[in-house]
Amino acid sequence: IYKVEWDIVTAEKAGYDHFMLKEIYEQPKAYRDTMGSRISADHKQIVLEEVQMTKEQIQDIHNIHIVACGTAYHAGLVGKTVIESLARIPVETDVASEYRYRNPIITPNTLVIVVSQSGETADTLAALREAKRCGARVLAITNVVGSSVAREADDVIVTWAGPEIAVASTKAYTSQLIAFYLLGLYLAQTLETQEAGAIADVIQALEKLPEQVEAILAEAEVVRDYAERISKHEHLFFIGRGLDFNVAQEGSLKLKEISYIHSEAYAAGELKHGTLALIEEGTPVIALATQEMLFEKTVSNIKEVAARGASVMGLAIEGDDELKKSVDELFTIPKTLPLLTPALSVVPLQLLSYYASLARGNDVDKPRNLAKSVTVE
Amino acid sequence: IYKVEWDIVTAEKAGYDHFMLKEIYEQPKAYRDTMGSRISADHKQIVLEEVQMTKEQIQDIHNIHIVACGTAYHAGLVGKTVIESLARIPVETDVASEYRYRNPIITPNTLVIVVSQSGETADTLAALREAKRCGARVLAITNVVGSSVAREADDVIVTWAGPEIAVASTKAYTSQLIAFYLLGLYLAQTLETQEAGAIADVIQALEKLPEQVEAILAEAEVVRDYAERISKHEHLFFIGRGLDFNVAQEGSLKLKEISYIHSEAYAAGELKHGTLALIEEGTPVIALATQEMLFEKTVSNIKEVAARGASVMGLAIEGDDELKKSVDELFTIPKTLPLLTPALSVVPLQLLSYYASLARGNDVDKPRNLAKSVTVE
Repeated sequence: IYKVEWDIVTAEKAGYDHFMLKEIYEQPKAYRDTMGSRISADHKQIVLEEVQMTKEQIQDIHNIHIVACGTAYHAGLVGKTVIESLARIPVETDVASEYRYRNPIITPNTLVIVVSQSGETADTLAALREAKRCGARVLAITNVVGSSVAREADDVIVTWAGPEIAVASTKAYTSQLIAFYLLGLYLAQTLETQEAGAIADVIQALEKLPEQVEAILAEAEVVRDYAERISKHEHLFFIGRGLDFNVAQEGSLKLKEISYIHSEAYAAGELKHGTLALIEEGTPVIALATQEMLFEKTVSNIKEVAARGASVMGLAIEGDDELKKSVDELFTIPKTLPLLTPALSVVPLQLLSYYASLARGNDVDKPRNLAKSVTVE
Repeated sequence: IYKVEWDIVTAEKAGYDHFMLKEIYEQPKAYRDTMGSRISADHKQIVLEEVQMTKEQIQDIHNIHIVACGTAYHAGLVGKTVIESLARIPVETDVASEYRYRNPIITPNTLVIVVSQSGETADTLAALREAKRCGARVLAITNVVGSSVAREADDVIVTWAGPEIAVASTKAYTSQLIAFYLLGLYLAQTLETQEAGAIADVIQALEKLPEQVEAILAEAEVVRDYAERISKHEHLFFIGRGLDFNVAQEGSLKLKEISYIHSEAYAAGELKHGTLALIEEGTPVIALATQEMLFEKTVSNIKEVAARGASVMGLAIEGDDELKKSVDELFTIPKTLPLLTPALSVVPLQLLSYYASLARGNDVDKPRNLAKSVTVE
């Protein structure tokens, strides 16, 4: 039996200047603990003992609604692509404060997945109750065993990220991504939508993620330099396509929360339909280009913003040096499967927001106006 | 037979300073022409002669994907709520440049609705072709008879908005909303998901919209005043819930496109999960509160931003004077059904962006970096 250990000392800063930085550095452990006992000894299968759904119940799922707020919602956007790609079940991801009031079409064949670090987010809990009232089965992804969301859901996947103290969520978000990978694989192996070899390949890549995150963290100083420069700006844009867009949304929220820079994430293909008008000489644009299939298209969007004077920071996979020609700065992350890149690409963006906030002299762990858990509506 | 007349003179400014302003004022005619012959003589039914789908084919629709770019995408967000509310078919609205690359789950029981003013938008056209390749039926909503999208779709609903010259779309967007109302009602009457009386009620309210838009346009000067004040700001937020959030997204895009103010739209319930950190003394916030069911919740979000020093402009229904206590400015629109408010509430926001752009001395009709139709990817 795999035992997860997070003792009281982890709730202190342990030599780091801020909880946020400590929590960023705890991610390799959080990944390992969250995968923990959920990968079979032969590394070929996912074991989700806490999920009670039978094979028949899984076969009966017609569609999935993922419901969450803030950072957890961004994890749910990645979750949609992960589940649709691996298990071919249609997924819709929605903001909890919108979902519960829009009279969503829920049937007994709908699986509702709620995601909440604290397990106490008011809108998410209310959405869970609404879903159950409509007869749906509810699966919760949460970091707190025994939280309201965990107690009221039919199934629970606990993210073993350990206590998260900083208001800006980091290790909770990435652990939610790991939970979605595990769940997507579990649904795929149950429904046999992927061959056994393909599932083993994803598992192998998953198990490499912790050391790959360590490699990114070892390069934190490079990000710090860039963060200090952008900290002088009041506007900034993130662009990307597909999963890169979803990570861009999370990177942008992180920067907003603690640096108070007005940043906004755009689906790169949508720029020409409006936002390109805001790009002027020197506007910083952070462009994610980690998705092989979308690489050329994203490079063409990077050239568009660069032609209007933007100062572009590219984020790509190690070895994609071609991008260097089109950007002012290039950061790279280790190679993994395209589906798994969010668990790596978000890490430099977390560091970016941390160092930008620091450079601005803000209270990193307790940004103005925000609370850790939103337990009121 | 109803005949739509738009002659060559309409392609000139006809006394207006800009095409955009002229097109904003042409909306009552665009609404009337788009409804035109599509409402039965007894005002109780929708007649969509151009839609060839049989009753059986409509009954076989399991889900709908709405696919579009920019402003048309925003019309599609409203379309989702309209169709789900009236016809209870699950709808997913997606950005065309994302949809076509994400291997969407399309079956022969999926209806794909593409929306494009010009009918030549490259990503939308490519999405249409991908959907047909996967065996889906495609319905197009377009303003140009004989455009590529119109020719390649199985069914077409033409919006009779007349030629739109300004880059920032106004009457094309609102005519797309009208098309979605007609389609939603048509699906509902075919599937009998609404009682005949309920359908007649919506039709009656629809037919009142043109004169209600005229009433809003008669008050344009009030908006002008406010627009001149916000034109001095570099950051601005729109907030709203449900359909108000969708209109907020369109209002924000409009302002960005032609005023170059960095505005951003937020689901009001999401503020506490991050963006509230950006609100400081004097930040302008435009809050839409036209949805009766969500009114109290939105007022509580307005109070949150006001408590952090935001200067709030409220947009509400005539008679909701209670809001006055919580906002710095209040604009009202005439009362209609909650589902139809987007066709009214967007109009003051169009005027707002027009006058803000004018106050900043920009080229209203031809904003920097943008083209009218995006016919490249």
